[in-house]
Amino acid sequence: MSDTFFRPVSGMELPRFAGIPTFMRLPHVPLDHPRADEVQIGLVGLPWDGSVSNRPGARHGPRALRDASTMIRAQNGATGVRPFELARCADLGDVGPNPVDGPDTLQRFENFFAGLKARNIRPLSGGGDHLCTLPVLRGIARDTPLGLLHFDSHTDLYPAYFGGKTLTHGNPFRNGVEEGLLDPKRMIQIGIRGTTYDNVDTDFAKANGIRIVRIEEFHARGVADVMAEAREIVGTQPAYLSYDIDFVDPSIAPGTGTPEWGGPSAFQAIEVLRGARGLRIVGADLVEVSPPFDPSGNTAWLGASLMFEILCLMAEAL
Amino acid sequence: MSDTFFRPVSGMELPRFAGIPTFMRLPHVPLDHPRADEVQIGLVGLPWDGSVSNRPGARHGPRALRDASTMIRAQNGATGVRPFELARCADLGDVGPNPVDGPDTLQRFENFFAGLKARNIRPLSGGGDHLCTLPVLRGIARDTPLGLLHFDSHTDLYPAYFGGKTLTHGNPFRNGVEEGLLDPKRMIQIGIRGTTYDNVDTDFAKANGIRIVRIEEFHARGVADVMAEAREIVGTQPAYLSYDIDFVDPSIAPGTGTPEWGGPSAFQAIEVLRGARGLRIVGADLVEVSPPFDPSGNTAWLGASLMFEILCLMAEAL
Amino acid sequence: MSDTFFRPVSGMELPRFAGIPTFMRLPHVPLDHPRADEVQIGLVGLPWDGSVSNRPGARHGPRALRDASTMIRAQNGATGVRPFELARCADLGDVGPNPVDGPDTLQRFENFFAGLKARNIRPLSGGGDHLCTLPVLRGIARDTPLGLLHFDSHTDLYPAYFGGKTLTHGNPFRNGVEEGLLDPKRMIQIGIRGTTYDNVDTDFAKANGIRIVRIEEFHARGVADVMAEAREIVGTQPAYLSYDIDFVDPSIAPGTGTPEWGGPSAFQAIEVLRGARGLRIVGADLVEVSPPFDPSGNTAWLGASLMFEILCLMAEAL
Amino acid sequence: MSDTFFRPVSGMELPRFAGIPTFMRLPHVPLDHPRADEVQIGLVGLPWDGSVSNRPGARHGPRALRDASTMIRAQNGATGVRPFELARCADLGDVGPNPVDGPDTLQRFENFFAGLKARNIRPLSGGGDHLCTLPVLRGIARDTPLGLLHFDSHTDLYPAYFGGKTLTHGNPFRNGVEEGLLDPKRMIQIGIRGTTYDNVDTDFAKANGIRIVRIEEFHARGVADVMAEAREIVGTQPAYLSYDIDFVDPSIAPGTGTPEWGGPSAFQAIEVLRGARGLRIVGADLVEVSPPFDPSGNTAWLGASLMFEILCLMAEAL
Amino acid sequence: MSDTFFRPVSGMELPRFAGIPTFMRLPHVPLDHPRADEVQIGLVGLPWDGSVSNRPGARHGPRALRDASTMIRAQNGATGVRPFELARCADLGDVGPNPVDGPDTLQRFENFFAGLKARNIRPLSGGGDHLCTLPVLRGIARDTPLGLLHFDSHTDLYPAYFGGKTLTHGNPFRNGVEEGLLDPKRMIQIGIRGTTYDNVDTDFAKANGIRIVRIEEFHARGVADVMAEAREIVGTQPAYLSYDIDFVDPSIAPGTGTPEWGGPSAFQAIEVLRGARGLRIVGADLVEVSPPFDPSGNTAWLGASLMFEILCLMAEAL
Amino acid sequence: MSDTFFRPVSGMELPRFAGIPTFMRLPHVPLDHPRADEVQIGLVGLPWDGSVSNRPGARHGPRALRDASTMIRAQNGATGVRPFELARCADLGDVGPNPVDGPDTLQRFENFFAGLKARNIRPLSGGGDHLCTLPVLRGIARDTPLGLLHFDSHTDLYPAYFGGKTLTHGNPFRNGVEEGLLDPKRMIQIGIRGTTYDNVDTDFAKANGIRIVRIEEFHARGVADVMAEAREIVGTQPAYLSYDIDFVDPSIAPGTGTPEWGGPSAFQAIEVLRGARGLRIVGADLVEVSPPFDPSGNTAWLGASLMFEILCLMAEAL
Repeated sequence: MSDTFFRPVSGMELPRFAGIPTFMRLPHVPLDHPRADEVQIGLVGLPWDGSVSNRPGARHGPRALRDASTMIRAQNGATGVRPFELARCADLGDVGPNPVDGPDTLQRFENFFAGLKARNIRPLSGGGDHLCTLPVLRGIARDTPLGLLHFDSHTDLYPAYFGGKTLTHGNPFRNGVEEGLLDPKRMIQIGIRGTTYDNVDTDFAKANGIRIVRIEEFHARGVADVMAEAREIVGTQPAYLSYDIDFVDPSIAPGTGTPEWGGPSAFQAIEVLRGARGLRIVGADLVEVSPPFDPSGNTAWLGASLMFEILCLMAEAL
Repeated sequence: MSDTFFRPVSGMELPRFAGIPTFMRLPHVPLDHPRADEVQIGLVGLPWDGSVSNRPGARHGPRALRDASTMIRAQNGATGVRPFELARCADLGDVGPNPVDGPDTLQRFENFFAGLKARNIRPLSGGGDHLCTLPVLRGIARDTPLGLLHFDSHTDLYPAYFGGKTLTHGNPFRNGVEEGLLDPKRMIQIGIRGTTYDNVDTDFAKANGIRIVRIEEFHARGVADVMAEAREIVGTQPAYLSYDIDFVDPSIAPGTGTPEWGGPSAFQAIEVLRGARGLRIVGADLVEVSPPFDPSGNTAWLGASLMFEILCLMAEAL
Repeated sequence: MSDTFFRPVSGMELPRFAGIPTFMRLPHVPLDHPRADEVQIGLVGLPWDGSVSNRPGARHGPRALRDASTMIRAQNGATGVRPFELARCADLGDVGPNPVDGPDTLQRFENFFAGLKARNIRPLSGGGDHLCTLPVLRGIARDTPLGLLHFDSHTDLYPAYFGGKTLTHGNPFRNGVEEGLLDPKRMIQIGIRGTTYDNVDTDFAKANGIRIVRIEEFHARGVADVMAEAREIVGTQPAYLSYDIDFVDPSIAPGTGTPEWGGPSAFQAIEVLRGARGLRIVGADLVEVSPPFDPSGNTAWLGASLMFEILCLMAEAL
Repeated sequence: MSDTFFRPVSGMELPRFAGIPTFMRLPHVPLDHPRADEVQIGLVGLPWDGSVSNRPGARHGPRALRDASTMIRAQNGATGVRPFELARCADLGDVGPNPVDGPDTLQRFENFFAGLKARNIRPLSGGGDHLCTLPVLRGIARDTPLGLLHFDSHTDLYPAYFGGKTLTHGNPFRNGVEEGLLDPKRMIQIGIRGTTYDNVDTDFAKANGIRIVRIEEFHARGVADVMAEAREIVGTQPAYLSYDIDFVDPSIAPGTGTPEWGGPSAFQAIEVLRGARGLRIVGADLVEVSPPFDPSGNTAWLGASLMFEILCLMAEAL
Repeated sequence: MSDTFFRPVSGMELPRFAGIPTFMRLPHVPLDHPRADEVQIGLVGLPWDGSVSNRPGARHGPRALRDASTMIRAQNGATGVRPFELARCADLGDVGPNPVDGPDTLQRFENFFAGLKARNIRPLSGGGDHLCTLPVLRGIARDTPLGLLHFDSHTDLYPAYFGGKTLTHGNPFRNGVEEGLLDPKRMIQIGIRGTTYDNVDTDFAKANGIRIVRIEEFHARGVADVMAEAREIVGTQPAYLSYDIDFVDPSIAPGTGTPEWGGPSAFQAIEVLRGARGLRIVGADLVEVSPPFDPSGNTAWLGASLMFEILCLMAEAL
Repeated sequence: MSDTFFRPVSGMELPRFAGIPTFMRLPHVPLDHPRADEVQIGLVGLPWDGSVSNRPGARHGPRALRDASTMIRAQNGATGVRPFELARCADLGDVGPNPVDGPDTLQRFENFFAGLKARNIRPLSGGGDHLCTLPVLRGIARDTPLGLLHFDSHTDLYPAYFGGKTLTHGNPFRNGVEEGLLDPKRMIQIGIRGTTYDNVDTDFAKANGIRIVRIEEFHARGVADVMAEAREIVGTQPAYLSYDIDFVDPSIAPGTGTPEWGGPSAFQAIEVLRGARGLRIVGADLVEVSPPFDPSGNTAWLGASLMFEILCLMAEAL
């Protein structure tokens, strides 16, 4: 059990709109902090959007997520889980990108997450664009490929883009599979929709045994049924959870770079995570929140709420 | 039946974007108006947000609700009810708060509603934060406790907050019960969700027999089933209806102080009110609309539309 | 099959945020262009809002729709249809209105669409307010009345307004029927809701055999069932499809002049169009997108996505 | 001197954010009110934008002006003038336009202002687009042409537009001169700037003796010098003051239909009015506030503040 | 000279959009931090708006100021001052208010600032509404009254309001004088403007020898001349600097509760502070930034820039 | 003189809000168009923001500039210049960037501008971030270095950043000098301000003879005096004009990545360009407009207005 150092500041002591905003009002514990090694789940910001093909702005995501997250309290109202009592959690700060050099940024990120793995800290990241997931996986899954529970409107399984440049936010998972960081047989992608250029991504999925649940199937079957299948596919070995905010319908989460219509409701967006209880989530991220396209702040507040649900999963899976 | 004095201005005479905005384009009838005693249902603004624990702005709610409400026409499209023919309705104006003194404000509000009761005018208020409900109840329910049909994402059954200050927007209903203004056995709270600090509110509910329908149950059972139970619990004796706009999902109603994800759709938000037909609603409010957080104006327009549905209920219950 | 001239610019060549925005990145082919006669489906902007009774702004709709539409790719993700391979499509530009003269504008529009019919180009228009539909029908349906598949929250079957002025965005379909441009027996209007002044519109529908599916019925029966009936009513003869963006719930599409709560979700808003496969749609429009009331840009992006779905229908129906 | 009936509600009694918003919190006195004949200066809303050539929205201006104007207090801080003690002022409400019929609207407006003249009420109108000025002048200046003090970035002296349609917001003053409502020798237009198509407007000015002060001259000479000339030109006979909000720089007043860069600062925008003290202003308007393009509300708040300065002028000129 | 612990994070190491936002990227040093006693200038957030008479939201000011302040670099471009080398600066965090109890909040604030004085830390606060200044003064000026350099559009010298409630954001300086915390002979208030109810504030100023420079005088004389007088009045004894963001024109700083038109330009808003070099500023604040009314974020970014200028003054005055 | 092909569409024929938006409603003439070789001044979009160190979004600049530019008419109101009669102007479209590869993008841009030079088309670009200027200069100034008239709040003379990455939007002009594309003796930078890390940029300027006019000097001397010096420094040989929108005060142009307070007014922002008449401007750009941070659209509209003024300069200099 967590001691009080790792507890969030309560809104009963300091109002929720007050204070320097860390993730969920947790203590800020950079890796050179004396208690860093005690952290079990580290919340991390990845402020980088250098790989997006459409609208930028996700570099501002971590700060907006932190700001919104101070409205989170201590207990999951639906499940009763109290994650800050189950796990020692902390805000590890942001990993600094090089805003004008993608490869340098990816290396900086990978180094950071390899460091977390060495300390046995499980990461929950707030993006940042979806390519940020790749250096996380490189940092924590070099030895054993992970399963993947992936919520998104895009498969992100595309090949090289724009004249051979391999790495974009359209292909982290193709690279993850090709680099042996992910086990394609234990991968499921839920919510896929929108127009496409061709079928090169779904062909890759078929060839590798990756399960894709398109949004039409999702709406037809419902959350419970889809998530039962997801739990079966991902299994009980260590798995990664990647949640692109554009999984959710743009009416709910407009602040993202590549929105696609027809996604789940906010309730469903939360329920899928509760449907993942029992999985062994050893790392996770919530990506593609782009505050400049989020005039009401809804996207950041939903993102922060989803991070709390993911944190509950990770705390239960310790 | 109402005479033409109490009829709204029609958009066929004066376009809906024109004119000084009263609630639903009704005549402005302050209590010193010669025809005030004829009013059966009085629409009232309560521009106060001094008890909020998070984001302010609900003091601007009544004006935004009035502005949006001029898009309301004469007849409920779904039920055919024509409330302005069933009841003499009027906009009574705002009750003036003391913006820097909570207790003084509560007393001013209570006095006003006691005056309405003395004149036999049933109130439909537009808030203002949720503590505004308490002085309404004090004004109209001192003699006999009322049933309560309550839509919200929070129970508002919390005890003292922040070092003993009893009255906040987190506890009007606890106080209402403790002061004998509400009959807990005839209370139902629908839509509860979000993170919590602890279970002190639900413990109070259990101890007093208050029925709470969490949002998970709501989504699982559907509107018709939940509202059938609600009608049974509230019964046919006089009841109050309190509708916190944060009952509705924040994708629909972002302009509020403490939004929680996973609420009903707009259609469901309306349908629950139609499911309350037959109840004897003698007073009601729609609270927590905060225009500064509502860039599209959607929250105010939904709030005004819900007030019309509530008005139909009240007109039928005369 | 289309040759490459009529293909949209790919985002793999020019990023989607780049370039002068035509509808779906199609070539701009004004009617004096040498290849204009080859066009099979012409996308047209109708920048006019002179007939609105409430909030203006739809004159800015076509530009916002074009801007958003550059996020559209080549293939319908759900159905696999590749419309730009099935049909030679082009952006014909805007038809110039006279912003201070309604009758002149209607005549300019009618002339344009009569010209399209003479060239055998099927129109898909982006409005503009809903009265824009009338001159389209006058241009293409003078000889044989069309069936109508109509998505809206209003019937637009109202009679003269405001002292005898016949033409407003509240009555294009009444006029369409009375002028013999539409076959009322093959008309269905889906999604009707909101408050009304009276029943003059539904009385007209009943008297003429127009089928109205109110939103309550829509939600009760679901998309598949309603659309099966719609296909039966509209039949296999040539039909027009008119889609008012206010069919969709305002939480999804706030940027419109007369929003009404309780509409379909974004997924349903798309699914109804997929449910229209097999109909012989010879002309269509998407109207009432008002960018000044659309701070997040969601309404325009949904409008563009719906236009793509309609285009798929029209390409299949060639 | 005014009695208390005609005094605004004080913010010391009812907070300024509270209450149904009339212009400057004055009593609402429609013309059928028993005390209407006592009114000396009538504030009127003209919610119409049917003549604009670019962006619409000014129909929503009167309501936004009223809403903002509740922040106005009793005394001009700079001059010490207390207009509500000098004159019996009231909010006469809006004059209803016909939103789909320009000529009908102009007639309705003219009738209203002719009625004011008959009652000896001097009008201060809040627009609405600039064509609204013409029916005001027709209503009050049929017998004797007025001088004109005109602040604007456009001369509004253009001839027929778009195929012969005479009346638009680009030509009220040309028509005013041609109809004998304005004395061109006593006209001055200040602030003119922006690109033009040709010189037809300035040619008309020269031919008729209208003085135009371009913005370059304004900035070079300063407020005091320009206004000294203005007072001389307009003279001491009855004059009209017309203030187009686009006179002010768009950084200050973005919410308008045809903004042009390089206008005066807010301080200068106010000072020009103080420089008009001593003129015999018998009617005035503040036009072209378009709330949909005013995300911060600044334009409406400036417009209301300017209306107060104009009201001070009119009260002193009684 | 400061050691590196007290230096801001450089944007050359961590991009300016990254990282948990403290004031100017300084270390967060709460008072129980081991190095707290070394701090010379403490930046403090005062997230409270419970005393405002009009629009709320300043409780969100400190967070928005911190967020914007990460765009500040190390050196004053105009003066060359490098404050973080002159003084050991730190972000002390927010002082927690009681959001539903004004007197309790004022006591909490006073205690905090008394603690700072005891440690010899000079405070630079970011508000919060203007009443926040009073508990700062109570905390640091109980023994010797301070001079005051005050920029504002209001004098805040009003007496009791709304039935005898003494403390509001309209009267901190009247109370400061009456409580002996300020020396009225060494007080100057610059920028005063806007409508008023009466002259009770200026009468108080005259009676006590407080110098008021109205905005008309300010614009007429210019920054250099006014500030020369200000330096003379305030003198070389310890003084407080209070900067209400509504001193600046609303076109520049719309995000505030009670904006008044006609204020200085942004350049002047900065220059007045450079004109205060040489004064012995021992405490300061920047108040009334209300983010919900600041859609562009300009107000917060200006506020942060002004805080940097003030910090330079304080660092030079050590 | 231009023939009608190269004339903008008039708002008297097609309303200004209508039509596919090209720059200033000019014909779209891609380089493979049959009349491309006749173009004298080519307006070009550079939709790229991959080198920014702070807020992104300038990739969306060209589209927003085009959209706003349709409000431009034919004649400069102040100078009477009619650029479209002096020069054959056209919109050449956007140069496609590679959004995930900076070096590739720079090469694509350079190639394009080298092609323009080969055709003798003078470029007026709309950015994009400020690094876009460098490939323009590489394309057109490889043979003879150009003079530079540069408006900005930053010198953009910084050396390598973030571990040796040479090219960012902070150093195009340092590189331009070092690559021999610019003649430092004929360079003037006007408007410099804001905080800095150190003096490395101004040291470079001094060492190379580049004239810097800080904003304090600009405000003290005024436009006419500063521009007289600028004309002298830049001289009569071919020169480039680069206008960073952040030269202008953020109250006017908030939509940019790195705003700094205290800049010129909108009038001054225009006047400096009129003060450049007589210079031999052979290429120019307007950069750093970032629409996601421009809620009112003011920044784009000002940018388009400035581009028109620059176009007038270039047309006169042919």
